Amino acid sequence: MESRKVFFNGEFVDELDAKISIYDSALMFGDMVFEMTRSFNKKQFKLEEHIDRLYNGIKILRIPIQYTKEELIEFCHKTMEINEPLFSDTDEHRLMINVSRGPLGIYSHLFENPQPSVIISDFPLKWTVSGLGNLFDGGINGVITQQRAVSNHLIDPKIKNRSRIHYQMANIETSLYKGENNWPILLDDQGFIAEGSGDNLFFVKNGVVITPKGHNILRGISRDYIFELCAELGIKCIEEDLTPYDAYTSDECFMTATPFCILPVSTINYLKLNSGDGEMGPITKTLLNQWSKNVGVDIAQQIKDFNGEFKINDNVPTPYSFKVKK
Amino acid sequence: MESRKVFFNGEFVDELDAKISIYDSALMFGDMVFEMTRSFNKKQFKLEEHIDRLYNGIKILRIPIQYTKEELIEFCHKTMEINEPLFSDTDEHRLMINVSRGPLGIYSHLFENPQPSVIISDFPLKWTVSGLGNLFDGGINGVITQQRAVSNHLIDPKIKNRSRIHYQMANIETSLYKGENNWPILLDDQGFIAEGSGDNLFFVKNGVVITPKGHNILRGISRDYIFELCAELGIKCIEEDLTPYDAYTSDECFMTATPFCILPVSTINYLKLNSGDGEMGPITKTLLNQWSKNVGVDIAQQIKDFNGEFKINDNVPTPYSFKVKK
Amino acid sequence: MESRKVFFNGEFVDELDAKISIYDSALMFGDMVFEMTRSFNKKQFKLEEHIDRLYNGIKILRIPIQYTKEELIEFCHKTMEINEPLFSDTDEHRLMINVSRGPLGIYSHLFENPQPSVIISDFPLKWTVSGLGNLFDGGINGVITQQRAVSNHLIDPKIKNRSRIHYQMANIETSLYKGENNWPILLDDQGFIAEGSGDNLFFVKNGVVITPKGHNILRGISRDYIFELCAELGIKCIEEDLTPYDAYTSDECFMTATPFCILPVSTINYLKLNSGDGEMGPITKTLLNQWSKNVGVDIAQQIKDFNGEFKINDNVPTPYSFKVKK
Amino acid sequence: MESRKVFFNGEFVDELDAKISIYDSALMFGDMVFEMTRSFNKKQFKLEEHIDRLYNGIKILRIPIQYTKEELIEFCHKTMEINEPLFSDTDEHRLMINVSRGPLGIYSHLFENPQPSVIISDFPLKWTVSGLGNLFDGGINGVITQQRAVSNHLIDPKIKNRSRIHYQMANIETSLYKGENNWPILLDDQGFIAEGSGDNLFFVKNGVVITPKGHNILRGISRDYIFELCAELGIKCIEEDLTPYDAYTSDECFMTATPFCILPVSTINYLKLNSGDGEMGPITKTLLNQWSKNVGVDIAQQIKDFNGEFKINDNVPTPYSFKVKK
Amino acid sequence: MESRKVFFNGEFVDELDAKISIYDSALMFGDMVFEMTRSFNKKQFKLEEHIDRLYNGIKILRIPIQYTKEELIEFCHKTMEINEPLFSDTDEHRLMINVSRGPLGIYSHLFENPQPSVIISDFPLKWTVSGLGNLFDGGINGVITQQRAVSNHLIDPKIKNRSRIHYQMANIETSLYKGENNWPILLDDQGFIAEGSGDNLFFVKNGVVITPKGHNILRGISRDYIFELCAELGIKCIEEDLTPYDAYTSDECFMTATPFCILPVSTINYLKLNSGDGEMGPITKTLLNQWSKNVGVDIAQQIKDFNGEFKINDNVPTPYSFKVKK
Amino acid sequence: MESRKVFFNGEFVDELDAKISIYDSALMFGDMVFEMTRSFNKKQFKLEEHIDRLYNGIKILRIPIQYTKEELIEFCHKTMEINEPLFSDTDEHRLMINVSRGPLGIYSHLFENPQPSVIISDFPLKWTVSGLGNLFDGGINGVITQQRAVSNHLIDPKIKNRSRIHYQMANIETSLYKGENNWPILLDDQGFIAEGSGDNLFFVKNGVVITPKGHNILRGISRDYIFELCAELGIKCIEEDLTPYDAYTSDECFMTATPFCILPVSTINYLKLNSGDGEMGPITKTLLNQWSKNVGVDIAQQIKDFNGEFKINDNVPTPYSFKVKK
Repeated sequence: MESRKVFFNGEFVDELDAKISIYDSALMFGDMVFEMTRSFNKKQFKLEEHIDRLYNGIKILRIPIQYTKEELIEFCHKTMEINEPLFSDTDEHRLMINVSRGPLGIYSHLFENPQPSVIISDFPLKWTVSGLGNLFDGGINGVITQQRAVSNHLIDPKIKNRSRIHYQMANIETSLYKGENNWPILLDDQGFIAEGSGDNLFFVKNGVVITPKGHNILRGISRDYIFELCAELGIKCIEEDLTPYDAYTSDECFMTATPFCILPVSTINYLKLNSGDGEMGPITKTLLNQWSKNVGVDIAQQIKDFNGEFKINDNVPTPYSFKVKK
Repeated sequence: MESRKVFFNGEFVDELDAKISIYDSALMFGDMVFEMTRSFNKKQFKLEEHIDRLYNGIKILRIPIQYTKEELIEFCHKTMEINEPLFSDTDEHRLMINVSRGPLGIYSHLFENPQPSVIISDFPLKWTVSGLGNLFDGGINGVITQQRAVSNHLIDPKIKNRSRIHYQMANIETSLYKGENNWPILLDDQGFIAEGSGDNLFFVKNGVVITPKGHNILRGISRDYIFELCAELGIKCIEEDLTPYDAYTSDECFMTATPFCILPVSTINYLKLNSGDGEMGPITKTLLNQWSKNVGVDIAQQIKDFNGEFKINDNVPTPYSFKVKK
Repeated sequence: MESRKVFFNGEFVDELDAKISIYDSALMFGDMVFEMTRSFNKKQFKLEEHIDRLYNGIKILRIPIQYTKEELIEFCHKTMEINEPLFSDTDEHRLMINVSRGPLGIYSHLFENPQPSVIISDFPLKWTVSGLGNLFDGGINGVITQQRAVSNHLIDPKIKNRSRIHYQMANIETSLYKGENNWPILLDDQGFIAEGSGDNLFFVKNGVVITPKGHNILRGISRDYIFELCAELGIKCIEEDLTPYDAYTSDECFMTATPFCILPVSTINYLKLNSGDGEMGPITKTLLNQWSKNVGVDIAQQIKDFNGEFKINDNVPTPYSFKVKK
Repeated sequence: MESRKVFFNGEFVDELDAKISIYDSALMFGDMVFEMTRSFNKKQFKLEEHIDRLYNGIKILRIPIQYTKEELIEFCHKTMEINEPLFSDTDEHRLMINVSRGPLGIYSHLFENPQPSVIISDFPLKWTVSGLGNLFDGGINGVITQQRAVSNHLIDPKIKNRSRIHYQMANIETSLYKGENNWPILLDDQGFIAEGSGDNLFFVKNGVVITPKGHNILRGISRDYIFELCAELGIKCIEEDLTPYDAYTSDECFMTATPFCILPVSTINYLKLNSGDGEMGPITKTLLNQWSKNVGVDIAQQIKDFNGEFKINDNVPTPYSFKVKK
Repeated sequence: MESRKVFFNGEFVDELDAKISIYDSALMFGDMVFEMTRSFNKKQFKLEEHIDRLYNGIKILRIPIQYTKEELIEFCHKTMEINEPLFSDTDEHRLMINVSRGPLGIYSHLFENPQPSVIISDFPLKWTVSGLGNLFDGGINGVITQQRAVSNHLIDPKIKNRSRIHYQMANIETSLYKGENNWPILLDDQGFIAEGSGDNLFFVKNGVVITPKGHNILRGISRDYIFELCAELGIKCIEEDLTPYDAYTSDECFMTATPFCILPVSTINYLKLNSGDGEMGPITKTLLNQWSKNVGVDIAQQIKDFNGEFKINDNVPTPYSFKVKK
Repeated sequence: MESRKVFFNGEFVDELDAKISIYDSALMFGDMVFEMTRSFNKKQFKLEEHIDRLYNGIKILRIPIQYTKEELIEFCHKTMEINEPLFSDTDEHRLMINVSRGPLGIYSHLFENPQPSVIISDFPLKWTVSGLGNLFDGGINGVITQQRAVSNHLIDPKIKNRSRIHYQMANIETSLYKGENNWPILLDDQGFIAEGSGDNLFFVKNGVVITPKGHNILRGISRDYIFELCAELGIKCIEEDLTPYDAYTSDECFMTATPFCILPVSTINYLKLNSGDGEMGPITKTLLNQWSKNVGVDIAQQIKDFNGEFKINDNVPTPYSFKVKK
């Protein structure tokens, strides 16, 4: 079978050849910024916003990238075009855009043209989400981990970077809890709720949608879109410092991330939220419906349908269902 | 010219083919542990201690590594053996040993045999140190950066891991200072001196050698060896919480790291230490001499000699002389 | 069957009548200090040290206690004397000594003689320890909880007081983990290891016994006795700030508390310590043996024997095996 | 004289028999949640809100309570009904509702039916407030204590629990200050104003009512009612992080708590606030008047009148006028 | 040439005789509050607001000042009147109002009438600003220093006091950076942006003006006036916790202080803000224009014009262009 | 009567003319370092150590001082020589050595020769200590203030500088407590005991002398001398982090400072230490005796004798007996 192609510094290489030298700053220092996007009905969602965020990180890390934003967007489209023939009709395009600083100076003589690595891979969204369909009904159990979020003045999560082993540690910790469908919730250094290990958190209380302030978290593009949806729907939505007490006593809770958009959290540390028995709360449902409507895709149903097509091998760690054998 | 070979999960590949898939946890999460060692007269120094530290990290990160410590040491030796013909007589072997978790679960179906990536590369030490010879005479200017060390309870530096973009940020910050030979000194969250961006710090005050406590730092193998040398030489050596005041008012200061062993710090934020005008202080010199004697190599001279053979391309970032154009 | 008697402000009451008014400061503010002691071969161990610690708390909380230390010790002995006929030959006396401030001022008119409540209860040690015998062989799994120890400058754990719901919260959190024999390990606010929820922690590394500094912990009488035992046995024993890394990479770990003296910890977050497969490490064993010898009781065997006589009802929370139904 | 009756797990017992076993988790761990309510003209105020808050705590502490909210409210009413004959016409009912986890597991075999202790006591409000009448005129002197509020991520004050010896410590500290009518003001760990030792704080600045954010405080039912009153009166009311500077330079300050509703603070550390010489500030007065109007009771006058009927014995500590002899 | 006169406790002394005894609390403890004001067209701006802030500090520090606010304002006017003949037509009056506690008790017997030192000096504004004209065009480079702002609960910057050596340390640190026009930006203890070393910071993002919350900063009178100007111009203006990321990714940034009103920041750590190449951003310009219009002075032009008349000797440290020779 | 003379940048001026311009950095930023020394029998004690510490501060603050250490010591001697005729036979010389940066750059054109202010004043020690004699018998009551010590990484107290209004704030706070002889004890940001407002703290427990670590304190010359005395006397003396609990439960406590050497603390927050009723504890007494012996002066008696000669005017604040009228 023909391989998907990955954009790599101006060329297209086979997916399995999309690799980074061990002498690259990305591997030496976790010194890489990235974005992961998705399409709805094959059309990328909020691609410009993702690229803007990427370039914020590039600027702050002072990576001397060789392409403009416009070029990068163009390359994204070209990558999808090339790979589309290998995608089924129901597939969506998940793009991963990586930018590293390139080989460290002491190794750079090895390379003909040492420069930042700019990589765009494109793979079916179902790889990421096919195991998540049942969570739209049963909900996630959020686990407040002892692993804390790294404070923004140490390593800023707002720069979407690869120095984030602590998310993996939180995933591992969560895997030690009883039961299934446990996803981590990280507190920040002050004990305020920060984020998941790759998703943002929202709570609903008395009809108001509340999310942690944008200090010690990745400010997700999906998170921003919730603000838009709330404005569209006339739902009050605020950013606030939140404590575990606020989480336990909220009416609804949901997580947002690009691949699945919205997933309900029905319990936190196995404590049921006010809105009831694992069904998606009314405001969560309203937001998901509106999002589905706006993009012309029944988001939950699409993910449930993926499950028929594709099964994740869950003997291996994934960001969403880390398994550790005791 | 023939290429050096890199051990990669049981095989030897060309150096430039030693690459990690973009789907590997190492690149997704900075989820990789590593060691970097060196030889003296072609014989690896403290290799077992390095491997022990590596396996501490592997255990805590729960990476299901497919090799035992003994096997890994064996592979290190084999790698040097294979590459030795490509090394000059004066070269020393610098090994980089990387262990990642392997591809994330959602990508693992792409790989025939998804497993941890265990990689050993072997390159001439001079790449790393050839530009440092003059520092043995003039000393480093330590710069106390606003970038703080990440607290051990967030991402533990004692696990030698790749989620350490903050070291790179400290390098960049330091490059914004006037003058040359500026190397960063990071404080921890309490304002105590932690470490450099890849080296440990020692101070001498009233004949006593003092180094920051081992909480928020990588506990360097070279750092441990200073303890050994002090014991051998009858010099009192203690671990203590140290503030910038202690640094500024110390008699001597030096940094330790595997490639250069010991480098003197003659000023901190351009303030001269008590011991004088840029020459190595007497205890620093004593320690370096003893180390040289014990390993049968004049450490400083060897590094100065390397400079004739090899020049680093310093238009590109290196851990030890990061340049950013204003 | 005749009831055990409890000393209550100068009188002896039936055990089930040893109760505190809801208007007492103890219940209003957790405003009570206490000690729990045990006997070996019916003889109280370190009773004076316990009473000294109790009076430290009484002084700092400014409880106007109506008895001297000497009187209180006398009452302890009298209480045991009265209850001894109800104890079997193999039983040991566990004393609980409570001192509260008495009824709050606004309620004091209700009471004839409002004064501090000084209470000494005396019950068989086996109630506390009969379920723990198997842990001497298999060891505890320490779980590092997200519940942190309360900093000493907020509520000082060195005052053995009753405002310690956070220990209970740590017990609950630990009960959510997979597996059995999980006991909490609390970090302090700086991320250093503090204590368990009613026990102190010791680690062994390279032959040295190390325990967290005495700042944010209860300074256990058993902990003090380990210092004595180490001195007696010529084992080096130090207090040090310890991080989870130090815990995971230690050779041995054990917990100390009055009822069981020493219990081995064989895994932490299910990670095996260096010393091996669940058997008690050699230094742990040496200390336990010496303790047994010094008090003339085979401590582990006695606890194992208790298990034949008495079974804890574990459908109800206990400090050592909290169960929460998911 | 006949005794008031206290509801105790389904039965009514004499007030002085409302006691908790020393083996109960409430006494062992301060593991008890509670509410204290009051009536206006014999009618309970915001009883449902109190019960809701109680059940939030019960849920988070995972106390397996045997009653529903509705039952508990019913029991409250029944308790008042039974006791009303013992109350004078001018008396108001103060209810204290306590819920503990029940006896610890290791003691549970002693009890026939070990279960949570659910207790409702009912006593005249005047006990609590009869000494406070003069404060409506002269105001409180707030004292910023060195005792800090316990951070919510250690022991959450939003769960109205009994592990709060630090409030008592703050009371004691305040009693060491010169003068009379000193009540503590606790800062949180960041140095922001948190709360009193049993009351919430409000400040008025330029016509705006400001109160500390709800993170590290008990979110009082009276505090919530101030929000309602402000809305009713068209007064702007916000939650904000406040520093001592903000307190010293405010125009007015008042404390809120269930028994006295609103008490003015005229000085802080003896520094006069802007609004003048000890008289209640205009907005404070407006709020108190509206509250009085809404409940049909002149709140301040009623408390002043109580003073004729009942005198607190102030040789004994009370939450509102702790005395310590130097 | 005749000397300017300085008000000193009721008398007018020659400028160079305006001195404080080494036995004054001001010099012993930095125990002095002060204000610095300026005129526009010879008319003082916001003098009452400055005096109000001064008296807030006097109250909290409990300095027994011998004058009322009204008297002090009167003295300010008298001081300007006396000095006006020595000012040129284009000069503006810069007042410095100092209030110290007076000589310490142990020295007070030396003084006839020991009392607070109340001092008003009046000098041409151009001394302070004549070197700053070019910054209106090229902008400042903000440097985020490792020197942090002192937390308000340690030494409150809201009390404009003289214990602020850390500002000087930040100035020194900034002088070690490459390039010109570097001004410090201090973070607070949580890593949030606080203030400059004598100025407040404002950012513009998506048309909204944002400034750090008023906790750990001096709440500048100019800062307050920006709020007024924004209200006047219909520009949304909010206070928010801001991180360096927010600074780097803002559209515009400016600093405010009494002498120069508004100065643009075009780069932060040499990273260009979004709005472009060193020209003042549109909202910054709008605010400066409105301010100029309101006070009838072209603020930037006036400062540029001063430069012709007066040159700062910049071999000596100034708050705005500290020089340290390497 | 003839005036004492003060050394001022090379000249000797009358004591009351020793003044600092309001344009000096010392007054603008608290930007001054200083030392205060004393003589025993007219001979300065540890003058070199004081001068060394002074020059540490000068270096770190980068004050371009125009004199060498040796010159400054010479000036100290000359100052005493000049003033000795004005001292009585029993007087001791108290020197205050001040070094400021000099006038700020924007004001420097006003001064003929803008340079650092180097000032040495010399006055009778009795001014400082004559009121303290009774404390050698009755002891101080230490008050733990809510004012915390400023963390060393914000403003380092190890640099003896004049930005220390927080000491004055602690003095004020202490003056609000009941009783006499209250001196402040400041905790650091972690809640550890730091220092007094101008003195160091020592505790004695089980025969060991313990003092807070040297991080967040001024490392007093007297503190250093206690280390010497303990070594001389064979008393174990250690630096340790200490909590209030350690203070309350210590056997003895004393404060050290240059003027009075050692003063006993008999109570802390009015709680008696273990050693008894206000008399100096045995180790405190031993240290004071040895100190007296070593310097040939009965330190306590001399201070008591001063009281006959000289009375402090205590209507005015002093560092040791601040009075604030309520």
